[in-house]
Amino acid sequence: MSVSRRSLLGIAGAGAVAGGVGYLAAERQTVPGGVDAPVPFHGRHQAGIVTPAQDRMHFVSLDVTTTKRSELVDLLREWTIAAQRMTEGQEAAPGGAVGGGPYAPPKDTGEALGLPASGLTLTCGLGGSLFDDRFGLADRKPAALADLPAFPKDKLDPARSGGDLCIQACANDPQVAVHAIRNLIRIGFGAVSVRWSQLGFGRTSSTTRGQATPRNLFGFKDGTNNPKAEDVALLDQQVWVNDGSWMTGGSYLVARRIRMHIEIWDRTSLDEQEAIIGRSKGEGAPLGAVAEFDPLDFSSDAIALDAHVRLAHSTQLGGVKILRRGYNFVDGSDGVGHLDAGLFFIGFQRDPHAQFVPMQMALATKDRMFEYIQHTGSALFAIPPGVRPGGYWADTLLD
Amino acid sequence: MSVSRRSLLGIAGAGAVAGGVGYLAAERQTVPGGVDAPVPFHGRHQAGIVTPAQDRMHFVSLDVTTTKRSELVDLLREWTIAAQRMTEGQEAAPGGAVGGGPYAPPKDTGEALGLPASGLTLTCGLGGSLFDDRFGLADRKPAALADLPAFPKDKLDPARSGGDLCIQACANDPQVAVHAIRNLIRIGFGAVSVRWSQLGFGRTSSTTRGQATPRNLFGFKDGTNNPKAEDVALLDQQVWVNDGSWMTGGSYLVARRIRMHIEIWDRTSLDEQEAIIGRSKGEGAPLGAVAEFDPLDFSSDAIALDAHVRLAHSTQLGGVKILRRGYNFVDGSDGVGHLDAGLFFIGFQRDPHAQFVPMQMALATKDRMFEYIQHTGSALFAIPPGVRPGGYWADTLLD
Repeated sequence: MSVSRRSLLGIAGAGAVAGGVGYLAAERQTVPGGVDAPVPFHGRHQAGIVTPAQDRMHFVSLDVTTTKRSELVDLLREWTIAAQRMTEGQEAAPGGAVGGGPYAPPKDTGEALGLPASGLTLTCGLGGSLFDDRFGLADRKPAALADLPAFPKDKLDPARSGGDLCIQACANDPQVAVHAIRNLIRIGFGAVSVRWSQLGFGRTSSTTRGQATPRNLFGFKDGTNNPKAEDVALLDQQVWVNDGSWMTGGSYLVARRIRMHIEIWDRTSLDEQEAIIGRSKGEGAPLGAVAEFDPLDFSSDAIALDAHVRLAHSTQLGGVKILRRGYNFVDGSDGVGHLDAGLFFIGFQRDPHAQFVPMQMALATKDRMFEYIQHTGSALFAIPPGVRPGGYWADTLLD
Repeated sequence: MSVSRRSLLGIAGAGAVAGGVGYLAAERQTVPGGVDAPVPFHGRHQAGIVTPAQDRMHFVSLDVTTTKRSELVDLLREWTIAAQRMTEGQEAAPGGAVGGGPYAPPKDTGEALGLPASGLTLTCGLGGSLFDDRFGLADRKPAALADLPAFPKDKLDPARSGGDLCIQACANDPQVAVHAIRNLIRIGFGAVSVRWSQLGFGRTSSTTRGQATPRNLFGFKDGTNNPKAEDVALLDQQVWVNDGSWMTGGSYLVARRIRMHIEIWDRTSLDEQEAIIGRSKGEGAPLGAVAEFDPLDFSSDAIALDAHVRLAHSTQLGGVKILRRGYNFVDGSDGVGHLDAGLFFIGFQRDPHAQFVPMQMALATKDRMFEYIQHTGSALFAIPPGVRPGGYWADTLLD
């Protein structure tokens, strides 16, 4: 018996649109076609960067275990085909969960059967370690992919850092994101192995003007001044690589697992919390202003010199900005009475050493918020440009 | 400036209903008023048991650190008030995230500001260890709350097992579930500390006839024959305590963290997978039958003697059933190349020693599925009856 995700979705089609309207009215999402609809896979840039931020994420970092370049290329080709299928709401391969006959393992693991595309995007990246001597890529390594420096107060866990490859899955249904990552891992069996993996449950930045600004686990709106998909010239300047290299049309992803000591934060006065952030908690307005999107007045002393919004603001950093697209997380408890909670920061930029590094250095040395947070994981990945029909992830590098 | 979750929700009200319609059409949920609507807090039974299973869960187990019974009672009173408020879509306390004045910590952590009730239910339970000599409860301990026996193949982590108290938060938005648990922990500061905590992202059982049967991470439909909210007589027989004690109207919750070795499962043939489960993967029909809800014919040899559905079926266990209400999870990776994924089993019953224990003993000794799973956490909690207006969690025990 053959069941495809697509065939099961016939009835749900009309409802999906109505569901989207509901979410729109609730100001959670602005997704053409609704939260269940597919996001186009092909394009000049990979999806999952300026795509309206979905509500859930599964991020995986992988080490390549094969040493054969041809097997790496085969994997990226196979991944690309499966990724496109899954973003369309189909199973990972034709036949899927029940194809291949009774004596073969299913070609899809099955847990997303009956679920719609759910806005799934899959974004693939390459870590600096991929450019060692295994695959003949050493002379193609971009300068921007050089290791991040050590930052003050870092407490990085190597088991939550680095990796040869990454895949960021974002979707409006976590089961769809998890299904996609799991099937790509399955396809990569024998060529890659999981290095670390992170689930996120609440996006912490909006990436389009229609999205309401979400809140992080400090309870504050996050990403009010994030560059938006509509800011085309700004994105060209800050996010997209355009140097004529194989990375043209791509970007660089910095991931930081930021543990928040929420129990300590929760015992801090409102006044102190707002002073540390530089915005009001309820409205999210800059201190000294009234509304969320009011400009930040750094000539006034309402916003302290060491307030987070001042230190991280582009005017204080020579004009650089980062497209943030992070997620809240709770990874159980820490074994000593607290939730293991925080922010999985994801930032996209055209040069992390000119953008993330100076920002993070300013924060790590001056930001009082660092009394309440700790960076426990770190990774940097080159995100190759989008895939053309018939192409595959990173083909501009590997072909 | 004062912002309440309720005031922010005025605009979203109409949209919430439309959103519900969308989800209904997509057959994901059957929630009166839609996935954003509140679930009544008061009642004969606690909500979160036969409530239509929401899609997301945050479960926390806590140890009581105070030794004063009066402080335990105060905590349960304060929790109940905050819990009722949050299930109505309000902040944890009046004034909330910005109340209490600038020099006090906020009375709500703020990250759910602007989010609707999202079907939140909060279900409180008492572990056997609460009935030691600290609070004078030893002679009120129900026989049903005796420790579960050790089962063959258990590999329990004490740091993921047991606890004096539990709170199960279920909602259709994980940020709402996490917010509720976090605020209850915050309220309990000085009286309780987190023992363990588990997030779940995809319900694995339907609890009402209107809900489509979801899939677990083996890719199979799970909970087809689960007792449903509509089966009132069956629930009275199997789920609700009715012995005249303080537990009358309550139930017992067994939680088991079941790690699934999904990578090994994914390399197993479809034939083998279906034989182990006893159902087809696509449709979820009993082997030898056609449709999901067809009866299981144990006189035929289509369903193997050691198939999971046979071993776990009430006809094989003297007629006992368990109301299952578990969730899928992925907790990052295991450090040796795999996802740390599985099923957080939650089962409700009137007597775990007559229901869960014989079922689990049959499975742990005979079920071939145990080649692919491992029980890594375990807990048993008494779930007191529902709260009357003005009452508090466990007041039938503590008053």
